Amino acid sequence: MDYASILREIEKEINLNQTRGQVASYIPELARINPQKYGLHLACMNGDDFHLGDHTEKFSIQSISKVLSLSLAMSKLGVRLWQRVDVEPSGNPFNSLIQLEQEDGIPRNPLINSGAIVIADILVSILDNPKKDFLEFVRLLAGNDDIHFNEDVARSEQDHGYRNYALANMLKSYDNLHNDVEDVLDFYFHQCSIEMSCAELAHTFLLFANEGVICQSKKRMLTRLQTKRVNSLMQTCGFYDEAGEFSFLVGLPGKSGVGGGIVAVHPGEYSVAVWSPRLNKKGNSVLGMKTLELLTTKTGKSIF
Amino acid sequence: MDYASILREIEKEINLNQTRGQVASYIPELARINPQKYGLHLACMNGDDFHLGDHTEKFSIQSISKVLSLSLAMSKLGVRLWQRVDVEPSGNPFNSLIQLEQEDGIPRNPLINSGAIVIADILVSILDNPKKDFLEFVRLLAGNDDIHFNEDVARSEQDHGYRNYALANMLKSYDNLHNDVEDVLDFYFHQCSIEMSCAELAHTFLLFANEGVICQSKKRMLTRLQTKRVNSLMQTCGFYDEAGEFSFLVGLPGKSGVGGGIVAVHPGEYSVAVWSPRLNKKGNSVLGMKTLELLTTKTGKSIF
Amino acid sequence: MDYASILREIEKEINLNQTRGQVASYIPELARINPQKYGLHLACMNGDDFHLGDHTEKFSIQSISKVLSLSLAMSKLGVRLWQRVDVEPSGNPFNSLIQLEQEDGIPRNPLINSGAIVIADILVSILDNPKKDFLEFVRLLAGNDDIHFNEDVARSEQDHGYRNYALANMLKSYDNLHNDVEDVLDFYFHQCSIEMSCAELAHTFLLFANEGVICQSKKRMLTRLQTKRVNSLMQTCGFYDEAGEFSFLVGLPGKSGVGGGIVAVHPGEYSVAVWSPRLNKKGNSVLGMKTLELLTTKTGKSIF
Amino acid sequence: MDYASILREIEKEINLNQTRGQVASYIPELARINPQKYGLHLACMNGDDFHLGDHTEKFSIQSISKVLSLSLAMSKLGVRLWQRVDVEPSGNPFNSLIQLEQEDGIPRNPLINSGAIVIADILVSILDNPKKDFLEFVRLLAGNDDIHFNEDVARSEQDHGYRNYALANMLKSYDNLHNDVEDVLDFYFHQCSIEMSCAELAHTFLLFANEGVICQSKKRMLTRLQTKRVNSLMQTCGFYDEAGEFSFLVGLPGKSGVGGGIVAVHPGEYSVAVWSPRLNKKGNSVLGMKTLELLTTKTGKSIF
Repeated sequence: MDYASILREIEKEINLNQTRGQVASYIPELARINPQKYGLHLACMNGDDFHLGDHTEKFSIQSISKVLSLSLAMSKLGVRLWQRVDVEPSGNPFNSLIQLEQEDGIPRNPLINSGAIVIADILVSILDNPKKDFLEFVRLLAGNDDIHFNEDVARSEQDHGYRNYALANMLKSYDNLHNDVEDVLDFYFHQCSIEMSCAELAHTFLLFANEGVICQSKKRMLTRLQTKRVNSLMQTCGFYDEAGEFSFLVGLPGKSGVGGGIVAVHPGEYSVAVWSPRLNKKGNSVLGMKTLELLTTKTGKSIF
Repeated sequence: MDYASILREIEKEINLNQTRGQVASYIPELARINPQKYGLHLACMNGDDFHLGDHTEKFSIQSISKVLSLSLAMSKLGVRLWQRVDVEPSGNPFNSLIQLEQEDGIPRNPLINSGAIVIADILVSILDNPKKDFLEFVRLLAGNDDIHFNEDVARSEQDHGYRNYALANMLKSYDNLHNDVEDVLDFYFHQCSIEMSCAELAHTFLLFANEGVICQSKKRMLTRLQTKRVNSLMQTCGFYDEAGEFSFLVGLPGKSGVGGGIVAVHPGEYSVAVWSPRLNKKGNSVLGMKTLELLTTKTGKSIF
Repeated sequence: MDYASILREIEKEINLNQTRGQVASYIPELARINPQKYGLHLACMNGDDFHLGDHTEKFSIQSISKVLSLSLAMSKLGVRLWQRVDVEPSGNPFNSLIQLEQEDGIPRNPLINSGAIVIADILVSILDNPKKDFLEFVRLLAGNDDIHFNEDVARSEQDHGYRNYALANMLKSYDNLHNDVEDVLDFYFHQCSIEMSCAELAHTFLLFANEGVICQSKKRMLTRLQTKRVNSLMQTCGFYDEAGEFSFLVGLPGKSGVGGGIVAVHPGEYSVAVWSPRLNKKGNSVLGMKTLELLTTKTGKSIF
Repeated sequence: MDYASILREIEKEINLNQTRGQVASYIPELARINPQKYGLHLACMNGDDFHLGDHTEKFSIQSISKVLSLSLAMSKLGVRLWQRVDVEPSGNPFNSLIQLEQEDGIPRNPLINSGAIVIADILVSILDNPKKDFLEFVRLLAGNDDIHFNEDVARSEQDHGYRNYALANMLKSYDNLHNDVEDVLDFYFHQCSIEMSCAELAHTFLLFANEGVICQSKKRMLTRLQTKRVNSLMQTCGFYDEAGEFSFLVGLPGKSGVGGGIVAVHPGEYSVAVWSPRLNKKGNSVLGMKTLELLTTKTGKSIF
C-alpha cells in the first residue's frame, strides 16, 4: 500500500474528538494551545511528501530540540562529548535528580534534561554566538530560514524552570557545567522554545534517515557513525520512561516534546513528524503515538 | 563486501590473545571454561551460513534463554503477559531488587532476572511438563534435537542463586509469583543451563529475523507483531545497563549471557551468534561486543 | 504528681472506643485479636508497679523481641557484632531491601528486619540450642518461666514471610548470613512469636533502665556501655520510619511491635509497656503512642 | 569525679598531634584554619564553667546555626512549621537531593540542608529584617552582643554553594519555598557564617538544657514541649548519617558543623561545646566526637 492511501486510512481511524490526555499546562503559552490541533508530515528520501491536517502550523518543539543540539555538539566535539554524558536509558522521569546524584553528576544520556543541559553548556562554550549559531544550524538542516525562537515561551520557561535550575546547579556542583548557570539555561530555554511545523520538522530530521547528509543540498553534517549514534540514542532514550513502549509500538527511533510533537525516522526511507497537543502521563502525545503505531503497522515496515 | 570476506577481516582484527575481561566465576562450571574460546556463526535468511572458530562448540546460553522463554510465554498468553511485567529499560544492574521494590513487584522488563522469573512462573503455570516442553520448544526453533540442559550447571546455580531466591521471594511478597519459589527457580535455573553452539543459536534466532516464522519449516511461532515486540525488547533491554552502548556500537537487537555468548538479529537479513567467555564489568562478552561492532561497521548495515 | 494519679488521668483521657488504625492482618493469628484490648504496666526501679487494663494478658511481642536478641548477641559477641550490622537510623520502612542493596548487605541497624535477621544468624551460630537458649534468656530477664513461643504464629509467619525470605537470601548473597536461610528464619519467626504481657515486658525491660543489671536478682547481663548502646539504638531506630516522631512525642528509648505492643525505658527511673492492637500506617500502636506521650508529658520527665 | 578533674583527664588523653581527618576545604576561609586548634567549654546550669584550650576563640559555627534558626522559627510559628518539614532521621548525607525528590519536596528534618533552607524561607517571610533579627536572637540567647556574621564566609558559600542552589530550586519546584531563591540563600549562607567561640556556644545552648528558659536572664524563649522537640531532633538528626554513632558513643542530643564545632546538651545538667577542625568522612569533628565520648563515659552520665 502506498503512503498516500495509508495516510487516508490513518485520517479515518484517528478520532480527533477523543479527549484522553492533557495539554501541557506548566506555562501559559503551552496551556492555551487548541487541543484539537492535529498534523502529520511524512518526508521521503526520494523527495515525496505526504501530509495530514495542520502540517504547516508551527508549534513549540520543546525536547525535540535536544536531538538537534546534540547533533551540533557531536559535529563540533566528536567523541570527547561522551566524557560528560552517558548513552544509557535512564529508566526514570526526564527531569529526575536522583540518578544524577547517584551517578556523580554524569547524566544518563543527552536526551533527558540534565544531559541536554550539559550539551547546552558545551554549545555555549564552543559557539561564537550560541543562540544565533544554533538557530542557523537548525535553519540549515531545515532548508528554511523562517524558523525562530519564541521569546515569550523562553521567558516563561525561565520563570517556571526551578527543576532545570536545580539540575544545572547540581551539574555545577559536580563540575560538569563550565559556564554560568544563567547563560546555559538561557540557551537551553531558547532552544526548547523554537517553533516549527510538522513539515519543517520532517524535512529537518531527514538528515538522520540519510546517514548525516542533508537530502536537498547534499551537504554532510554528521558522519555515518555519528548518525547511527543519534538514531540509536533516539531509539533507546527518546521517550523518557516510555522509550520501551514507543520502541515496542512504533519500532522507529524518535523524539517527543511536551508541545505535543513527535518525530520519528526510518533510516534509508523517510522521516515523519506528527503533532497533537494532548499528552499522556509520561508526557508523550497520545494521538502522536497512536498515529505512528498505525503508520508502521500499516506499512509493515519498522526497524524490527 | 560479502559476508565471507568480512568475517575473514574480523578474524584478522580480533586479537584472541587479549586478556581484558573476566570469565564468569560465580559457579565452578562457568569458571573453568577456557577463556581463549572464540566462535561466530552468521545465518542468513536465504540459507547461507558463515562462521569462524569454535562455532559448533556448545556453551551455557544463560540469559540468552530469556528471549526464548519470553517467546514461548507470548505465544501462549498473548498480551495478558504485560499485566505482570513491563517493557521499559531498567537503567539498573540485571539482578537489582531496588527497582522491583520501588515499582511494587512489577519487573521493568522480561529480560532482567526478576522479569524472567515472572515469565518462568507463567510457563510453570501453563505448560504440562514445563522443563520438557520448554526444551522441545527450543529444539523446534533450532531444528535440532541435540539440545540439552546441563544438570550440573542448574544445580550450581541453585546452590549459589541467593539473589534469585531473593527476587523470587520478593515477587511472591507482591503476589506476582503464583507457583512455589522452588518450582519456579528450578525451571529458571534449568532454562539458563541450556547448552548451545553459535551455529545452533544463530539458527534458532533466525525466527526473529523472519517475522516469527521458522525459516526451514515455514512454521509460524509468533505473529509479526509479537516478533516486533521481542526485537524491540532486545534492542532496548538486552544488555542490562549497557543496552545503550550496544545499540550505539552495534545497532541491532540482541541478547547476551554470562556464558560469554551474544546473539543479534538483523530483521529481514540474518541472525548472528558470537561466543567469547571474557566478560566486561557489565557482564557482556568483550570480544563478542567488539566482533558485532566490526560486523555492522563493515557491512555498513544496522537497523539505524 | 505520682504515677498512680497520672495513670488514672491517662485512663480517663484515652478513648478506648476510638477506631483509628488497623489491627495487623497479614497472618490470621494477629488479625483475630480484639482491637479493644488495652493494657499498661509501669515498673519502677524501686520495685513499685502501676498498671491499667489488660496488663496481664499476653500478646505477640513481635519486633520487641529484636531488642532482646540483640542484647543476648551483644553479651556473647561484644563489639565484633558491629562488623555485620550498622547503628544508623534507616529512614526507610522496616522491611526495605533497597538500602540493603545500596549498602552491600550490611543492614542499617539491628532493629530493622534485615539487621534482626543477621542477629538471628549470629545467635544460631553461637547458641547450643538457639530457640531454647533464647527463650531461657528472656525468662531470666523477666524473672518468670511462664513465657513461650506461639508455634501457630511462628508457622504462619513462615508461610507468609516472603519478604523476610527475600531479605535473608539477599544477606546470603552478600555473605552476611552464615547459616542456612531456613534455620535462621525458623529462629527469627520463633523469636517474634513470643507472647508476653505488659507486666512481663515492663519487668524484662527494667534491665535497660538499670544499666544492664536485672533489678530483682542483681545479676549483670550487659555492661553499662552495652546498655547505653541498646538504649541509644532504641532511641534512634526503635520505630521504623517513625523514630523521630516517637522521640519527639515521647522522648524515651523504646521499641514497638506489630502485635500492638510498645515498651519504653526511662534510664534510672522506670520501664513501661503498653498494648493496644490498632496500628497507624507506620505500623506503631495508635493508642500506645498516645499513652506514652501523655505519660511523659504529665510526668514532665523524659530524657530530653 | 568533678568536671574539673574530668577535663584534666580528657586533656591528657586527647592527642592533639593526631592527624586523622581533614579540615573542610570547599571554601578558602575554612581551608586555612589551623588544624591543631582545640577548645572545649562546659557550662553548667548552676553557673559553673569549665574549659580547655582555645575555648574563647571564635570559629565558623556553620550547621550548628540550624538549631538556632529552627528555635526562632518554632517560637514564631508553632506547630504549623511541621507542615513544611518532617521530623525523621534521613539516613542520607546532609545535602542529598534524592530523598527530597522521593518525598515530593518535604525535607526529612530541619537539620539537614534542605530542611534548614525551608526554615530560612520561613524566617525570611516572618522577620522584618531577617538577618539582623536572627543575629539579635542569637545574641540574646548568648547574652553577648559581640557575635557577628563573617561576610567573607557568606560570600564564599554563595560562590560555591551550587548544591544548596540545587536544593532551593528543587524546593521551589515543589512549591515549598515561598521567597526568592537568592533571598533565602543569602539568609542561609549568613546564618551559617556566624562566628562563635566554644564559650559562647555553650552558654547559648544552655537554653536547651533549661527547658527553653535563658539561664541568666530567666527569659523563656521556647515552651518546655518545644525544647523537648529541639533536643529530640538533635538526638535523632544532629549528625547527618552519623546520628546513630553519636547517640551511641556520646548519648546526648547535639549538633555538629563543618567548621569543626560540636555542641551537646545534657538536659537539666549542662551544655558543652568543643572545637577541633579535622573532620571525619561524615563531616563531623574527629576530636570533637572523641572528647564528648570521653566526657560522658567519665561522668557516667548520659541521657541513656
